[in-house]
Amino acid sequence: MKIKVAIAGARGRMGTTAIEAIEEAADAEVVAALDYKYDGLHLHNASVNDGKLGIPIYTSLSTLFEEHHPAVLLDVTDPDAVFHNVKEALALGIHPVVGTSGLTNEELQEIAQLVESTRTGGIIAPNFSIGAVLMMKFAAQAARYLGDVEILEMHHDRKLDSPSGTAVKTAEMIKENRPPHIQGHPEEQIHLQGARGADVEGMKIHSIRLPGLLAHQQVLLGGEGELLTIRHDSFDRKSFMPGIMMAVRKVIGRNDLIYGLENIID
Amino acid sequence: MKIKVAIAGARGRMGTTAIEAIEEAADAEVVAALDYKYDGLHLHNASVNDGKLGIPIYTSLSTLFEEHHPAVLLDVTDPDAVFHNVKEALALGIHPVVGTSGLTNEELQEIAQLVESTRTGGIIAPNFSIGAVLMMKFAAQAARYLGDVEILEMHHDRKLDSPSGTAVKTAEMIKENRPPHIQGHPEEQIHLQGARGADVEGMKIHSIRLPGLLAHQQVLLGGEGELLTIRHDSFDRKSFMPGIMMAVRKVIGRNDLIYGLENIID
Amino acid sequence: MKIKVAIAGARGRMGTTAIEAIEEAADAEVVAALDYKYDGLHLHNASVNDGKLGIPIYTSLSTLFEEHHPAVLLDVTDPDAVFHNVKEALALGIHPVVGTSGLTNEELQEIAQLVESTRTGGIIAPNFSIGAVLMMKFAAQAARYLGDVEILEMHHDRKLDSPSGTAVKTAEMIKENRPPHIQGHPEEQIHLQGARGADVEGMKIHSIRLPGLLAHQQVLLGGEGELLTIRHDSFDRKSFMPGIMMAVRKVIGRNDLIYGLENIID
Amino acid sequence: MKIKVAIAGARGRMGTTAIEAIEEAADAEVVAALDYKYDGLHLHNASVNDGKLGIPIYTSLSTLFEEHHPAVLLDVTDPDAVFHNVKEALALGIHPVVGTSGLTNEELQEIAQLVESTRTGGIIAPNFSIGAVLMMKFAAQAARYLGDVEILEMHHDRKLDSPSGTAVKTAEMIKENRPPHIQGHPEEQIHLQGARGADVEGMKIHSIRLPGLLAHQQVLLGGEGELLTIRHDSFDRKSFMPGIMMAVRKVIGRNDLIYGLENIID
Repeated sequence: MKIKVAIAGARGRMGTTAIEAIEEAADAEVVAALDYKYDGLHLHNASVNDGKLGIPIYTSLSTLFEEHHPAVLLDVTDPDAVFHNVKEALALGIHPVVGTSGLTNEELQEIAQLVESTRTGGIIAPNFSIGAVLMMKFAAQAARYLGDVEILEMHHDRKLDSPSGTAVKTAEMIKENRPPHIQGHPEEQIHLQGARGADVEGMKIHSIRLPGLLAHQQVLLGGEGELLTIRHDSFDRKSFMPGIMMAVRKVIGRNDLIYGLENIID
Repeated sequence: MKIKVAIAGARGRMGTTAIEAIEEAADAEVVAALDYKYDGLHLHNASVNDGKLGIPIYTSLSTLFEEHHPAVLLDVTDPDAVFHNVKEALALGIHPVVGTSGLTNEELQEIAQLVESTRTGGIIAPNFSIGAVLMMKFAAQAARYLGDVEILEMHHDRKLDSPSGTAVKTAEMIKENRPPHIQGHPEEQIHLQGARGADVEGMKIHSIRLPGLLAHQQVLLGGEGELLTIRHDSFDRKSFMPGIMMAVRKVIGRNDLIYGLENIID
Repeated sequence: MKIKVAIAGARGRMGTTAIEAIEEAADAEVVAALDYKYDGLHLHNASVNDGKLGIPIYTSLSTLFEEHHPAVLLDVTDPDAVFHNVKEALALGIHPVVGTSGLTNEELQEIAQLVESTRTGGIIAPNFSIGAVLMMKFAAQAARYLGDVEILEMHHDRKLDSPSGTAVKTAEMIKENRPPHIQGHPEEQIHLQGARGADVEGMKIHSIRLPGLLAHQQVLLGGEGELLTIRHDSFDRKSFMPGIMMAVRKVIGRNDLIYGLENIID
Repeated sequence: MKIKVAIAGARGRMGTTAIEAIEEAADAEVVAALDYKYDGLHLHNASVNDGKLGIPIYTSLSTLFEEHHPAVLLDVTDPDAVFHNVKEALALGIHPVVGTSGLTNEELQEIAQLVESTRTGGIIAPNFSIGAVLMMKFAAQAARYLGDVEILEMHHDRKLDSPSGTAVKTAEMIKENRPPHIQGHPEEQIHLQGARGADVEGMKIHSIRLPGLLAHQQVLLGGEGELLTIRHDSFDRKSFMPGIMMAVRKVIGRNDLIYGLENIID
C-alpha cells in the first residue's frame, strides 16, 4: 500500500517538484492538496491534461482528512502558514514533514509539545539537501585544523530573512569543533557599519540577496597561506527530493519530533 | 639617463618586488631607500651578495636627497607613514608615487594644496593593478543592464580597515551608471546585525578577512535568472608592477596631483 | 494589434517560460504550439485550468499557419528539429526566432539563402542572455591587457555537445583583440590526454558536464601576479526572456538574417 | 639538540620560506645549502645582513655532509634534481624529506629499495598542505552520495606537467568510494578534441595554466539539482610549512619510506 501524502504549497515550484517526485516513487502517492483558495477545483501537474481529473484541492485540512486520510502532510509553504498547518495536522494524527525553515524557537517548542501529547511524530528540516548537510559536516571537521572561518550565503532577493538558517546552523556546528576566538585584526577599523558581516561565536556571516540567485553557501576556512572553501549550490528544488522522500518514508510510525536531515541519514 | 627613484618601504614585500621591477627596467634605477631604521646600512635585494654594496639606507629624506637627488619617491609603506613622507618629498621637489590606499580626504586635500604650491606633481593610486581597474570599469558598464549589485572583497586578516578602498570606489563608479534604488526585499528581516553588509548607495559591500587570503574582490550583478560576476585576484605584488612603472614614468614633468590609475592609462 | 507568435518546443521548460513571458507582454500573444505529437489537444500553461481551453497544438506548421496566421515562429526545440522548422517557417513567410545553438555552418548558410529568396527575416542567437553577451564583450576587451586566456564552461550532463557554442564564440571574439600566441609552458608535458582542454587559437576551453549544473561559463584572464575572472551563470530560463522578447519585436519587418543578440541590442 | 637540516633548492621561493620556518622553530636549524652553483659562497635569507656570514653553500652533498653532518635533507628542487639528491642522501645516511611531486613510479620504487637497503627512512609528499589533504579526504567521502565528479586544477604556466599529481591522487581516492561509472551523456559529441578533459576512472580532470595563478584545485560533485564544490587555494608557500616541519621531525628515527602527508598526520 502506498503512503498517502497531502501537500500544502502544491502550486508553488517546490510543491510542483515534490508532486513529481512522489508520483515517480513506487511507494507513495499525492492524495490531495491543501490550499488557501481554489477549494473544490483540481490541480494539474502536467501541462497536457485534457480529460484527466487532477489532484483535488481543499481549503480545510479536516475536510481533506475525512475524505482522503493522508498519513503525511508535506508542507512546503512559508513560515507563517506552516506553523498553523503543522498544529492542525498533529491534532488530526497526520505526520507533518516540513521543508521550510523560519520557525521560531517558541513555535518549535509548541510543536514539540503537541508531538508529545498526540504521539504523532514529525520531521522538520531547515535543509533537505544531502549536499548541504555534507557541507556543514565537512566545515565542522576542517575547522579543527583551519580555525578561522567566514560564511557567505547567497539567495534570491525574495528571501525575507537574513542570515539564512543554514548559515547559522553551520556556524553552530563549527563552534563545537574549534577553540573559541576572535577573528580578524584585533585593531580592526570598520569604516562602514555592517561591512564585516554578522558575528556568530567570532565567525562572520555575510548574506547576499540578488535577483537571479537561487540558494548558495560558501564556508571559507583560512590558514597561513591557504584557503579551504566548501561550497554548496542548490540550483533546483529537485536537490531536495531525495531528502524529502527519505523523510516521508521515515516519519511513518515515529512518535517523536526530528529536527535536521542529518538525524535520519543512515 | 635613468629615472632616479628613492623607495620608502623597501624592506617589505611590495618594496622588494618594486626594486626588482625598477632594476629590470632600462630607464629607471633605485638610488636609495628611506627607512625608519638601519641608517647607514645597505639593503640587498639578492640573497647571494658577497662583496656587493647594496642600496644605501637613510632615515632622513633630506639627507637622502642631498646625496642622491632622486626624481621620484615611490612610497609603499602604510597610511601612517605615507602622509608624512609625501609632504616631505613635495617640499624637496621629489615627485611622490604612492601605492598605498588609506589616506583620509583631509590628508588628500592637504597633499593637493602642497602639490599646487610646490608645483611638483604626484600620483596616488588606491590600486595599481590594471586587472582591478578593468574590473571596476566593467562592473560600472554592466550595471546599466543588471542594476542589482553586491560587492564582496576578501583580504588577509592583517588588513586593518574595512571595507577596502577599492570596494568603495567600485560602488561609487557603479552609482554613476544605474538608477538609484533600494536592493533586496523591501520587507527584509535582518535577524543578526551586519548580515546584509555595509550599504553604499543601495549596494551592499561585504568584507571577508582571513589568514591566507591576499587581495580579492568580486562584483556580483544579478538579473532575473542570471548572475554576472566580475572577479579580480591579486595573487602577488608583481601584479602592481606594470602600473607602478607607468606611474614612475608619467609623474616626471607633471605638476598636478593624479588620483587613480585609470587617469594615466592610455 | 498584438504580435501573433507560434511556439515550437512549448512543452519544454524553455517553452513554458517563454509562453509566460509572451503572455505577460502587452504587445504579443501565443496563438498556437507546433509539436510532433498531441495534434488537436490543448496546452495549459497554468496548473489550475478547469474550464479553460488552452493553446491549440498542431503537428503541421502549414495547418497551424492557415488557422492562426502567426507572424513569428519562436523555436526552442533542439538542433535537429530547428533546422526543419525554420525552413518551413520561411517558406510560409513566418519570421523565425531561434533560441537554440547547434546549427552547423552548412545549415546556417542554407537558412541565409532561404531568408534572401523569401525576403522573410529571421533571428538566430546562440545565447539570448544579455549577461552572457556582456561576459563575451568584457572578455574580449580585457584580453588586450591580459592576453593569456582559458575558458571554462559548465553545463548539465544532458547537454550532448562540447564545447558549448558560447565558449567557442567567446574565444573567437577574444582572438580579434589579442596578438596570437601559444599559451602555457613551451615544454609542457601532458601526461593524460585531454588534460589541457581543447585549443582554439592558442586559448584552452574546458567543458564540465555534471548533473545539477545549469549553464555557466567563466573566462579566466591571467597576468603576472593577477587573475581577472568574468563569470556568467544562467540559473533559470527567465534570463533569456528579455532577449527573446527583444528578438520577437525586432524581427517583424526585417528581411535579413541576424546572427547573435549583440546585433540587435541598442 | 636541534635537528640539523640541509636544504636543496634554498635560493627558490619555497627554499626561502622553508629556511624561515626552520629557523623560527626551536628544535631545528639549517646548517647548509646544497646547490648546483655558488660553491663556497653564503646564502643570506635576510635582506639587511652587513657583517653576517649566512648559510654556507655546497655543490657536493658528500662534502656538505663531512663538514656539517645534517640529519635531514629537505629537497624543494624540481623532479629532475630531486631523484639524484635523494639517492645520494640515502647513501650518506641522511633522511630525505621531499616536497616536490613529479617522481615517476620507477624512481619511487628505486628510492624505496634504497631506503630498505640503507635503513634510512624518508618522507615524500606530493602535497605538504593540510588544507589540500582535507580537500581530498572530503571529496572522497562526498562521492558516496554525489558520485559524478570533475576535478579542476589551476596552476601558474611555469608548471611543466599536467594534470597535477594532486588531481590524479584525488581521483584515485574518490575511486575507492564510488561505484565505477561513465559520466556525462552516453551519446556525448566532442567537437574539439580535449574539451572534456582527461579521464581517470570515468572522472574528468581539467588543467588550467595561466600566468598569475599559484596552486588551486576544485573538486566538483554533482547531484540532481545541486553541486558540492570543495576548493583549495595555496596562496603562499607558507601553507606547506606546518606539513614540512611535521615531516622533518617525524622522519628522524624512521627506517621506512612514507608517501603522502596523510600517513604522518595524527
